[in-house]
Amino acid sequence: MKIGLDLMGGDFAPEATFEGALQALKELPSEVRLVLIGDEKRLQKMLTGKEADSGQFDFVQADDIIEMGEHPAKAFAAKPKSSISIGFQLLKSGKIDGFSSAGNTGAILVGIHYTIRTLNGIIRPAIATFLPAGEKDLTLLLDAGLNPDSKPDVLYQYAIMGSVYAKSVWGLDNPRIGLLNIGSEESKGNLIARSTYELMKDNTDFNFVGNFEANEFFSNKRADVVVCDGFVGNVILKEAEAFYKLSKQRNFTDPYFERFNFENYGGSPILGASYVVVIGHGISNAKAIKNMILQTRNMVEADLINKIKKAIK
Amino acid sequence: MKIGLDLMGGDFAPEATFEGALQALKELPSEVRLVLIGDEKRLQKMLTGKEADSGQFDFVQADDIIEMGEHPAKAFAAKPKSSISIGFQLLKSGKIDGFSSAGNTGAILVGIHYTIRTLNGIIRPAIATFLPAGEKDLTLLLDAGLNPDSKPDVLYQYAIMGSVYAKSVWGLDNPRIGLLNIGSEESKGNLIARSTYELMKDNTDFNFVGNFEANEFFSNKRADVVVCDGFVGNVILKEAEAFYKLSKQRNFTDPYFERFNFENYGGSPILGASYVVVIGHGISNAKAIKNMILQTRNMVEADLINKIKKAIK
Repeated sequence: MKIGLDLMGGDFAPEATFEGALQALKELPSEVRLVLIGDEKRLQKMLTGKEADSGQFDFVQADDIIEMGEHPAKAFAAKPKSSISIGFQLLKSGKIDGFSSAGNTGAILVGIHYTIRTLNGIIRPAIATFLPAGEKDLTLLLDAGLNPDSKPDVLYQYAIMGSVYAKSVWGLDNPRIGLLNIGSEESKGNLIARSTYELMKDNTDFNFVGNFEANEFFSNKRADVVVCDGFVGNVILKEAEAFYKLSKQRNFTDPYFERFNFENYGGSPILGASYVVVIGHGISNAKAIKNMILQTRNMVEADLINKIKKAIK
Repeated sequence: MKIGLDLMGGDFAPEATFEGALQALKELPSEVRLVLIGDEKRLQKMLTGKEADSGQFDFVQADDIIEMGEHPAKAFAAKPKSSISIGFQLLKSGKIDGFSSAGNTGAILVGIHYTIRTLNGIIRPAIATFLPAGEKDLTLLLDAGLNPDSKPDVLYQYAIMGSVYAKSVWGLDNPRIGLLNIGSEESKGNLIARSTYELMKDNTDFNFVGNFEANEFFSNKRADVVVCDGFVGNVILKEAEAFYKLSKQRNFTDPYFERFNFENYGGSPILGASYVVVIGHGISNAKAIKNMILQTRNMVEADLINKIKKAIK
């Protein structure tokens, strides 16, 4: 298995990405090879003095970088030698099995649309994210911001993809899928939520457990996967970030707060793309990069893409 | 000034509502009279043994109660002698200046629509709610769940009403109004948010400070009022409830968490109705009821209704 890492992506790249790759190596079995995509000269410099040698990695030279502030579509088109563009070319040609990047999110999404595309039958891909649920578990939330206006048929597909993820990556037998709504009754919510409920309620594609309200997050275990449009999902994610920020500002000492720290999850899987892609936070440190790599490995290992392909008719 | 209180509304009524009224009395100046609406016999029983006498209150007998689980519209029509129905009749006939109830929220909304109506020109009324912002301040968020599908012109009116509230009740000179969105740029968000930004950006009705993201809540002070549709607002409120619940479950000791406790704010003002109406949480205890009454008094004292009337052209 080969996992591509965008060495140049993220606010603290390439130092943090390289450090994250080294940390990931310690946890990965030898059959997993990391493919670092970036400026080989800078990489060689970083190797000096580290307990690492270039033989542990594969390298692919990228002469260019898409910066965080650049216009995604324009930069992607103008910079075919950027680490992001090359990552997608490597994916498409089968030279890597998964690609992870903490770089310009917009450019990564452009890469998905123009280079590898979405799976046949997928109306819209989604960004999935993780929220803590009790002491040990997680809730998979999607879409976390890719499609601010999602129609019921799109939300239905999110549920299928989320269910496949929870089954194949988490190993759950019969994942419970909730529809984010503002009341427990079928008649509650906005037009989209009500129509989506109608679509989901007697389905045989996944285990629908009904409406899920936002006050159930963090402590409740009624749903493993919660689906909503990208506007609402992004609001939920950012409010959880606000809470984590607050805990830092006030030096809250309870270890539960660390469960809100994105670094533990590393990256957000893109579901519905033709290949495994995981997006990291721009401010990713080495730990976040390491976990993003492990996340990517887990998705490849679970054969997630083929399983989603089969589930989407 | 006369403040009507639905003595029978709420899960712990009439004991908690009565206790809350007693607590409010201690903080209210003598020119504010409380009008308790409910079963006088039960009230007399509660008076026994308390350091209170019936002369401190006005009473209006209500023979009936709309229960929490009843169908709002049907119950409101079928029970003209319920405490909620009588509350609205008293408002309309000028016998009370404001009405607060922790009873069946749906029935209260029906009362607004059928008995007192909204102000001329108001497309939709909104429920406003409060979120902590730093150590001392609050953010006024609306709509918190009344209109899950709100169009840009409705959101624009929310901004006007929120601005008037922050000016007249909080005494702010030039309240800053943010549009809840999932990015800071004008082009971000769903269709509704983008069109609303367009409407708001050069307005002269209120001080628009642009998009406001959910990760700015709790610690940031960039906006005094944040507007969004009732679906998103309800999700934000319930996620904040989830944090508070988590803090209780884990015995977090930081006093900041108490700022998430709805009991401190007591009630949610309805903005856009023709009279001052404040809705309390069903699980309100005496403290919450007291604060709901004080909230109602503040809105009457600020002459909020006339100020909103003037601001809506």
